[in-house]
Amino acid sequence: MTARYDFASDNVVGAMPEVMRALTQANEGAVTGYGGDAISARAADLVRELLDADVEVRFTASGTAANAVALAALAGPHEAVLCHEHSHVATDEAGAPGFFSGGAGLIPLPGAAGRIDPNALGDLLAQPDVSYRQSPAALSLTNATEFGAVYAEADLAALTRMAKARGVKLHLDGARLSNAVAAGFDIKSLKALDIDIAVLGGTKAGSTPSEAVVFFDKSLSRRLDARLKHAGQLVSKARFLSAPWIGMLEGGAWTTRAAHANAMARRLAERMPFPLTYPVEANGVFVTMDDAALKRLREAGWFAYRFLDGSVRFMCSWATTAEAVDELGAALQGIA
Amino acid sequence: MTARYDFASDNVVGAMPEVMRALTQANEGAVTGYGGDAISARAADLVRELLDADVEVRFTASGTAANAVALAALAGPHEAVLCHEHSHVATDEAGAPGFFSGGAGLIPLPGAAGRIDPNALGDLLAQPDVSYRQSPAALSLTNATEFGAVYAEADLAALTRMAKARGVKLHLDGARLSNAVAAGFDIKSLKALDIDIAVLGGTKAGSTPSEAVVFFDKSLSRRLDARLKHAGQLVSKARFLSAPWIGMLEGGAWTTRAAHANAMARRLAERMPFPLTYPVEANGVFVTMDDAALKRLREAGWFAYRFLDGSVRFMCSWATTAEAVDELGAALQGIA
Amino acid sequence: MTARYDFASDNVVGAMPEVMRALTQANEGAVTGYGGDAISARAADLVRELLDADVEVRFTASGTAANAVALAALAGPHEAVLCHEHSHVATDEAGAPGFFSGGAGLIPLPGAAGRIDPNALGDLLAQPDVSYRQSPAALSLTNATEFGAVYAEADLAALTRMAKARGVKLHLDGARLSNAVAAGFDIKSLKALDIDIAVLGGTKAGSTPSEAVVFFDKSLSRRLDARLKHAGQLVSKARFLSAPWIGMLEGGAWTTRAAHANAMARRLAERMPFPLTYPVEANGVFVTMDDAALKRLREAGWFAYRFLDGSVRFMCSWATTAEAVDELGAALQGIA
Amino acid sequence: MTARYDFASDNVVGAMPEVMRALTQANEGAVTGYGGDAISARAADLVRELLDADVEVRFTASGTAANAVALAALAGPHEAVLCHEHSHVATDEAGAPGFFSGGAGLIPLPGAAGRIDPNALGDLLAQPDVSYRQSPAALSLTNATEFGAVYAEADLAALTRMAKARGVKLHLDGARLSNAVAAGFDIKSLKALDIDIAVLGGTKAGSTPSEAVVFFDKSLSRRLDARLKHAGQLVSKARFLSAPWIGMLEGGAWTTRAAHANAMARRLAERMPFPLTYPVEANGVFVTMDDAALKRLREAGWFAYRFLDGSVRFMCSWATTAEAVDELGAALQGIA
Repeated sequence: MTARYDFASDNVVGAMPEVMRALTQANEGAVTGYGGDAISARAADLVRELLDADVEVRFTASGTAANAVALAALAGPHEAVLCHEHSHVATDEAGAPGFFSGGAGLIPLPGAAGRIDPNALGDLLAQPDVSYRQSPAALSLTNATEFGAVYAEADLAALTRMAKARGVKLHLDGARLSNAVAAGFDIKSLKALDIDIAVLGGTKAGSTPSEAVVFFDKSLSRRLDARLKHAGQLVSKARFLSAPWIGMLEGGAWTTRAAHANAMARRLAERMPFPLTYPVEANGVFVTMDDAALKRLREAGWFAYRFLDGSVRFMCSWATTAEAVDELGAALQGIA
Repeated sequence: MTARYDFASDNVVGAMPEVMRALTQANEGAVTGYGGDAISARAADLVRELLDADVEVRFTASGTAANAVALAALAGPHEAVLCHEHSHVATDEAGAPGFFSGGAGLIPLPGAAGRIDPNALGDLLAQPDVSYRQSPAALSLTNATEFGAVYAEADLAALTRMAKARGVKLHLDGARLSNAVAAGFDIKSLKALDIDIAVLGGTKAGSTPSEAVVFFDKSLSRRLDARLKHAGQLVSKARFLSAPWIGMLEGGAWTTRAAHANAMARRLAERMPFPLTYPVEANGVFVTMDDAALKRLREAGWFAYRFLDGSVRFMCSWATTAEAVDELGAALQGIA
Repeated sequence: MTARYDFASDNVVGAMPEVMRALTQANEGAVTGYGGDAISARAADLVRELLDADVEVRFTASGTAANAVALAALAGPHEAVLCHEHSHVATDEAGAPGFFSGGAGLIPLPGAAGRIDPNALGDLLAQPDVSYRQSPAALSLTNATEFGAVYAEADLAALTRMAKARGVKLHLDGARLSNAVAAGFDIKSLKALDIDIAVLGGTKAGSTPSEAVVFFDKSLSRRLDARLKHAGQLVSKARFLSAPWIGMLEGGAWTTRAAHANAMARRLAERMPFPLTYPVEANGVFVTMDDAALKRLREAGWFAYRFLDGSVRFMCSWATTAEAVDELGAALQGIA
Repeated sequence: MTARYDFASDNVVGAMPEVMRALTQANEGAVTGYGGDAISARAADLVRELLDADVEVRFTASGTAANAVALAALAGPHEAVLCHEHSHVATDEAGAPGFFSGGAGLIPLPGAAGRIDPNALGDLLAQPDVSYRQSPAALSLTNATEFGAVYAEADLAALTRMAKARGVKLHLDGARLSNAVAAGFDIKSLKALDIDIAVLGGTKAGSTPSEAVVFFDKSLSRRLDARLKHAGQLVSKARFLSAPWIGMLEGGAWTTRAAHANAMARRLAERMPFPLTYPVEANGVFVTMDDAALKRLREAGWFAYRFLDGSVRFMCSWATTAEAVDELGAALQGIA
C-alpha cells in the first residue's frame, strides 16, 4: 500500500485550476525576460491592490529563497535575526538565512503556538549591543504561525512596535498568509504595522512553486534584480513565476481556497479523537499522539509528521476534500 | 508598435507542448515533497539514460543557480574558477558563483567564438600556487558556447585533459547543450570527458523554468539536498521542476526541438544581409551590424541585443517559425 | 578610582618577558614575508616538537580567527558544527564561524562545567541527515573549558570516538590549552585522539596577539596560505606572530607560566568566601555571587564579569601575583 | 649565499625603534580588552589629529583585512568595487574583498603607474545598472600607488567627484600613505575629498603588523566592533595593535621615516643603470630589466620581484641604509 500524503503538508498537492489556467495563458508568445514582461507587471499590480500599498514585488521559486533574500536585505552578516524558536526560518531552511546573508545569526525566541512571546522579545531587545554578540537587526514574524495560529492584530502590533522602537526591522514570513487572511487577518494592516519586507506564500496556497517577495521599504530594494540574480532567484522566463498570482488574485482564489482549507481543518478537528495541542485557527490540526498511535496511523496508510513541539500535524489545503477528511477521521477513530 | 522579441533570446518564448502536458499530468494527486516523489525519480532516470551514466540529478529553477551551486561544490572561497571571458557565469550572472561559494574568484580566459583557447588555459595552469592569488580549482566549459559554437569532442577533450592533469575539476554549463547535441555533439561523451558536474539546460530548450544539475562525481553530492535547501533551490512541489524533463526526454523532444531551432538559425543565416561574425553551428546567429543599422532594426519592430564581443545576436528557439525567420530576413534586407 | 582589571580575564595583561625578548630578537634584519622566514619555520618546528606530530602550523592574530578558519575548513556552509552551548565559538565570537564558512550553523550541546555531555552528543549524532537541517560535519571541543574544567583524557576520547564513528571531524579550541597541560593533560594525546585541527592559545598564555592553528589532517591544509590570505589572516611581517612561540616554547614558559596561573587560581579559591560553582582545575575561579555583592566588589575597585551560566568569573594569568590574589581575597572577604 | 631581502619589499624589515619602545611601554599592567583601553584611545586620538577629522578608528593586524573590512562595509554582495587593475586589492589579496563581502565583485580599471584613468572610470560609471551585472558601489583608490606614484590632489579629486556624483562610495588603500604624505600629499585633504573609509598603513611604514581603518562616514561604523569580531579582526590585547601608532605618530616618525624611505629610493634611482619605468615619487623604484639581468642580480645575492606590469621593483623602507643602497647600486652596475 502506498502512503497517502493528503494531510502530510499543504505542499504535497498540486496547483489549483486557476493557477494552471493562468500558466497556460501565460505560455503564449515571445516576451521580454527576467520580469520585464506584462504578465509579471500585472501580477505585481494585483499584489499592490491586495495590500493597498505602493510596494516593490518580485517572485521567487521557493519560500526559503524568498525568506532568505528578505532577511539578507535586513540584517548584516555581523547581526542577527530574531525569530520564533520553531519558525520555518529557524528549523526548516537548512541555514538559508545565514547563507544568503554571509553569516547573520538567528536568535530563537519562545512563545505558545508559534507566536513570539512579547516578554521574551522585550528581554532580548533590552540587551546592549556588545562586540562579541550578533545584535538583532531584524524580527521575523510568521502569520499564520507554524502551529496554525493566527496573530490578533493587536498582538502583532505589540511586537512590531517593540522592534521598531529599537530600530529593528521587520520581516513577515507569510507562507500561509492566505490562511491567516481567510481566518480574519486584515492583510492591508501590514502597511500600518510597518513591515519592511513580507513574503506572500503562493506554493502552500495552491500555486506551482512561487512566492511573492514584497518590499514595503523600497529603499531596501535598490539593485534588487541584481541581488536576486546573483542569488539564483531571477529566472529568465519570469512569467511562469508571476502568472500563478494572476490566477490566484484576480478572482480571489488565493483567499477563498484558503478559507476552504481552513474549513477542512475545522472539519478534521471535529472528527479528531486525539486531543488538540492548539486551537485550530487556520489550516493545520495539531494533536497529542504517542508513537504507537502514529505507527498505527502510518500502517493504516496515512502519512503525518511529528513536529518539533512533539505534536503530530495534519495539514489541509485547497485540494483537501470533505471525503478525505472523513476517511482520515474514520482511520483516526480506528487507531485511537 | 510593440517590439517583437522573437529572436531576442531563446528564453523569451514559452514552453513546448510536451512540457505543458507533463506539467498538467504531474499536477494530479498528493505526493511527497522536496524531490522524493515518483515524478522526480522518473525524470532523474531519464537524465541518467540520456547520459548513460550513474549520476546524481537535481532540478533547479534557474540556470544561474544551477551553475553557481555546481561551482560552489567545486571551488572553495579561496580558490578560483577558470572560464571563458564572455561566458554566462562571467558576464551574465551578477557574481552568483562568488556569492554561492563565499567568494571564489573567476579567472577569464580568451578564445574565439566562446571556446576557450587551449594555449591560454595551458599558460594559466602552469602558474604556481601562491598565497596572494586564488588558484584554479575548477574549469567551467560551455557547450554550445555563448556565441553559438559547438566544441568538437577532440577540442573539448584537450581542455579537460589539461585541467584534470593539474587536479582542476570540471563544470559544464549546458544551458544550450540540447543545441550542441542536435548539432552532433555526443552527450554520452561527458562521462568519458570526466566532467564532474554538468548543468543540462531546460529553460532555453523549451521548458518552463528548470535546469538539471548532474553530479557525475557523486562524492561531491553528499548532503546535496541540504546544500540546495540552504541555497533556496529545493522547492517543496519539486514535481513542477522535474516533470518538464519527462516531457522533454521521454519522446526525445529535448533534442528534436533543438534541431529545429538550429535549422531555423541556419535559415536565418541564409537570409542574412549582414556578415556573420561566427559560423552558425547551433541556434544563434551573430552578425556585424553598426549602431545605425541596429537602430533601424528596432524601429522596424524587432528587438536584438548587441553582445559583449560587439556583434548583434539573433537567437532561434523551439518556437521559432520559418515564417518569423522569413519576416525578420525581409526586415533585415530592408535596413541593410 | 580606576577599576582593577587584574582578574577580569587572562587577556587583560601584557606579554610575558620571554615573548617580549623574542619579539625584540625577531626584529633584526630583512627577511622574506608571509611566513616564509626562518623565525616562523623555527616556531612551527617547536609546535611540532610539543605535539610530537607532523602537523601544518600557522599563526593568526586572534583566537576568533583561528577557530573560524579551522571550522570553515571542517564544515561546509550547508553543514553544522557541534559545540558546547557556552563555548567561546558559540557565545563570544559574534558569529565568526558562520561568517568564515559562508553560513555553517552551530548546534549547541549541554554539559557541566563546559564539558560536552556525551549523551547529548550521542542523541544529536543519531539524528538522520535531512534536507531541511544543517547536519553535523565537525565537533568543536574546548580544553580547558570556558568554565575552567580540564577534560580527563578518557572523557575526551569518548567524545572524539563518537564523532569520528559518524564521520564528524574534530576541532580543538585550545585558547587555554597551556592551562590544561599544566593541569596534567597530555598534549601529545591530541594526535591519538585524531583531532583534525587544533588551535593552541598564545594570547591568554601570555603572548602578544598570536594563536597557533595546527592542522593534524594535512589534506585540509591545501592552499592554506591563500585561505588565510583571503581571510585577512596572513600578515606580511609574519615573524611578529611566530616569534612569541619561540619565546614561549623554547624554554617551556608556555606550560610553566600556565602552571603559575593555575596555582594562583587555587590560591584565590582558598581565599574565596563565595561558594565555588565548579572545581578549580585550571586558571579560572567561578563563584556564586548575587548582583548586590558584585556591585560592592566593583565599588571596591575590582572588575569581574558575570558569566553565561550565572556565575561570576575570576581569571588568573601568567602575570597574576600572590599579592594581587591576596588583595582580591581580602576585598572579597570584605564584601561577602 | 643567502639572498638579501633588503629591497624585496617595504615589509621585509622589522619595526622602527619608536614602535618597539611603544610596545614595551604598552606592555605594562592589566587593562580592559578589545580596544576599550587608554592606549587604543590615545592612538585613535592621534589618528584624528593627523587627519583633522572626527573619524572612527580601529586597528587590524593585516592590510588585507583592513581593506576587505572596509570594502565589505561599502559594497553589498550583489555589487562591485572599482579598482585599478594592478591594485593590491585586485592582485595581492587572494580574493579577500569577495570573501569579506560575501561575493562582491571587482571591476579592474586601467591607468598609468597605478593611477586610475579618469576616462576609463567615466565610461564605467556611465553604464546603466542591469540585473545581470554587479554595479559599482565603491571606488578603491591607492595612494601612493602600487607603482610608487603619488596622486596630485586635483587628479584624485577628479576621480572622487566622478564617483560621488554617481553615488559610489570611496575607499582609500593607504598602505603607503605615509610615503605619499612625505612626498607632499596633504593627508588632511582626505576629509575634503569625501573619502568614506581609509586604511592608513602601519606595517610598511615601519610598524609591527598594524593598520588603521578610518571611518570618515561614521554611519558605516554602526556595530563596527561586532563586524570586526566576527571577521576575526578584534583582538583581545588590542593595545599591541594600537600602541605602534603612538610610537609612529607622537613624534612624527610615521612621516619622517617615510621621507627617509623616499630619499633612499631617489638615491637608488640615481645609481640605477637600468631605465626607470616610472618616475620615482615615493619609496619604490621600478625598472626595465630582462630575465637574464634579473637572474644575474639574484646570483649576485639580491632578491627582487618582477611585477605585474613587467617591471622589476626595488622598495626602500624606514630601515634602508645609504650603504645598502650603494651596495645594491654597485651590484646593479656590475650586472647591467
